[in-house]
Amino acid sequence: MISKPTLFLDKNKCIDNINRMFSKAKANNLELRPHFKTHQSLEIGSWYKEIGIKKITVSSLSMAEYFSPHWDDITVAFPTNILEIETINTLANKITLNLAIENMESILFLSTNLKFKINVFLKIDVGYHRTGINPKNYELLNGIFAIIDNSALINFIGFLGHSGHTYKCRTQEAVKEIHSKSLSVMAKLKKRYFNKYPNLIISLGDTPSCSIADDFYGVDEIRPGNFVFYDLTQNLIGSNSISQIAVAMACPIVALHKERSEIVIYGGGVHLSKDTLEDKEGTIFGRVVRKTENGWGDLIPNTYINSLSQEHGIISVPNGKIDKYIIGDYLMILPVHSCMTANLMKSYNTFDGEIISRL
Amino acid sequence: MISKPTLFLDKNKCIDNINRMFSKAKANNLELRPHFKTHQSLEIGSWYKEIGIKKITVSSLSMAEYFSPHWDDITVAFPTNILEIETINTLANKITLNLAIENMESILFLSTNLKFKINVFLKIDVGYHRTGINPKNYELLNGIFAIIDNSALINFIGFLGHSGHTYKCRTQEAVKEIHSKSLSVMAKLKKRYFNKYPNLIISLGDTPSCSIADDFYGVDEIRPGNFVFYDLTQNLIGSNSISQIAVAMACPIVALHKERSEIVIYGGGVHLSKDTLEDKEGTIFGRVVRKTENGWGDLIPNTYINSLSQEHGIISVPNGKIDKYIIGDYLMILPVHSCMTANLMKSYNTFDGEIISRL
Repeated sequence: MISKPTLFLDKNKCIDNINRMFSKAKANNLELRPHFKTHQSLEIGSWYKEIGIKKITVSSLSMAEYFSPHWDDITVAFPTNILEIETINTLANKITLNLAIENMESILFLSTNLKFKINVFLKIDVGYHRTGINPKNYELLNGIFAIIDNSALINFIGFLGHSGHTYKCRTQEAVKEIHSKSLSVMAKLKKRYFNKYPNLIISLGDTPSCSIADDFYGVDEIRPGNFVFYDLTQNLIGSNSISQIAVAMACPIVALHKERSEIVIYGGGVHLSKDTLEDKEGTIFGRVVRKTENGWGDLIPNTYINSLSQEHGIISVPNGKIDKYIIGDYLMILPVHSCMTANLMKSYNTFDGEIISRL
Repeated sequence: MISKPTLFLDKNKCIDNINRMFSKAKANNLELRPHFKTHQSLEIGSWYKEIGIKKITVSSLSMAEYFSPHWDDITVAFPTNILEIETINTLANKITLNLAIENMESILFLSTNLKFKINVFLKIDVGYHRTGINPKNYELLNGIFAIIDNSALINFIGFLGHSGHTYKCRTQEAVKEIHSKSLSVMAKLKKRYFNKYPNLIISLGDTPSCSIADDFYGVDEIRPGNFVFYDLTQNLIGSNSISQIAVAMACPIVALHKERSEIVIYGGGVHLSKDTLEDKEGTIFGRVVRKTENGWGDLIPNTYINSLSQEHGIISVPNGKIDKYIIGDYLMILPVHSCMTANLMKSYNTFDGEIISRL
């Protein structure tokens, strides 16, 4: 019985998403090291384990701690936070810990403060310009390699990139273009350093590129995360169909304003997050889908959240359609950004009545 | 020792904010029924109790449940969610529960499903157009009154409004203008229904109006919430000075990109929320303040978060200023919207080493 905002997970869609990405990785001879920041759940993680996934990615050392009792090879795809050296040493003593390095300060700090072996990826800026080493900054690369080569505890395993600028794309062609540039950046680095480090790998991994691209030349590992649930943003980019989105929020209808064709739901920024999408109607915070017996179906046309406050959501409904809705019923809403939405909710509900917990 | 994003509360600033609003309410002969959705903390709530506050406001029945062991008069300033009738009855049996009604469906449902006495406010749309009854819709008002008058368990206590459109103001004059219109709307309703309901009260309560206005003619009760912490948005509206903002997030510096004058912090949308502010620099997600021995001081000019992803924040620093920052240090960030930021963090840290928990 739904009485307040409740995040539902369609387990079949979720497992289909996992299987599809796994098959694609296999077909392209890539290792899938899925990013677990989207679901942050041991139980959902176990579904990956069942198909043979052994290595994962997370975005914080806190997440690495949470998953470490069950996963023994974890990459933290975030610039190493040296203030967490204690956690780094605890984890390094327990699992294969792979950190991302993008500056001299962090590698120098690690070289004098590590107590156990770790692997490091050098984080390369493939064009997103959020973090990472300029791929032509050989001085910095070589400086970092000099520290690594002198350390008994630090092992270089490869170059890691994230083409996060694909999130701004609105066509599959644009995603492929960015991805292709990332391949080229990484291929040059691999060529340059391959003789010295013959085991180095290339790790790439945004969900749009991994979902859309068909060329992964030179890549060894992919790290997509969002694909496990997908969302409206990924749909607009071209990563997934609406029917592949695996999470939806059930939100009670608490008011109807026919004069402005708006529904007020119990469901706000503390449930869905304030992440937005610019779409044909303007700024939207979520879209309403039809309810079905055991889940949800298609989008209800032009029916979307036009604003969110802390607990309120305001749904815009096409003229003449509001009479179908009643106070005391609930709506199913697809999120703009499933990572942020999942992070706000304490658990996932399935249509079998199962409650799946998370970090 | 700060090692990851940590929300700090300056207890002195917070208590000053509480005292200032309390004094203003007293001077204007208003009852202060503070909104607790901002802090969501029993301990911070106890600071209000110490100065004599006995009645509070929350934005969900879940919050009412959390506060109900310690507060026996709670208003839920959100359209009544009839799907939570069980919680409503549990609370109504225990405390003085005041619900907000804005449609016939909810009052009809309550009239047949309540087991214990409640008070209701009629929620009036004073111009924000998010929720509430059009103040000229006497047919609806009278229809609701007819149900209330026939119910032994429902007591009408007054009209409740929220001038949330003040959040779009960027001058104190604009806030006062909106507030003045709300006063006028409420005064007309009070006049119309006062003979029939001589004990009815007028409750208003957005933080901008309560902070800025000096005329509260006809108002009996105010319900501001955000003033307990304030934030950058309220500062831009004119509600508070920067020095009155009582919360700041400590975020480790994990990378420096001198070529684009940017700092990367560990601190993202899962810590600060994705709420934004349009200011002179464009869209901002937070501003950096100077660290002091026991807290923080002034804004560092033109140093602000220009983008946020799940765990990363990107700080824009004026040209020539980035050399002052070092990896492994941390920054103190003032939030754009303290309600959303506080909601994301599990607790507040004080500079005495105290950890204050919340819902």
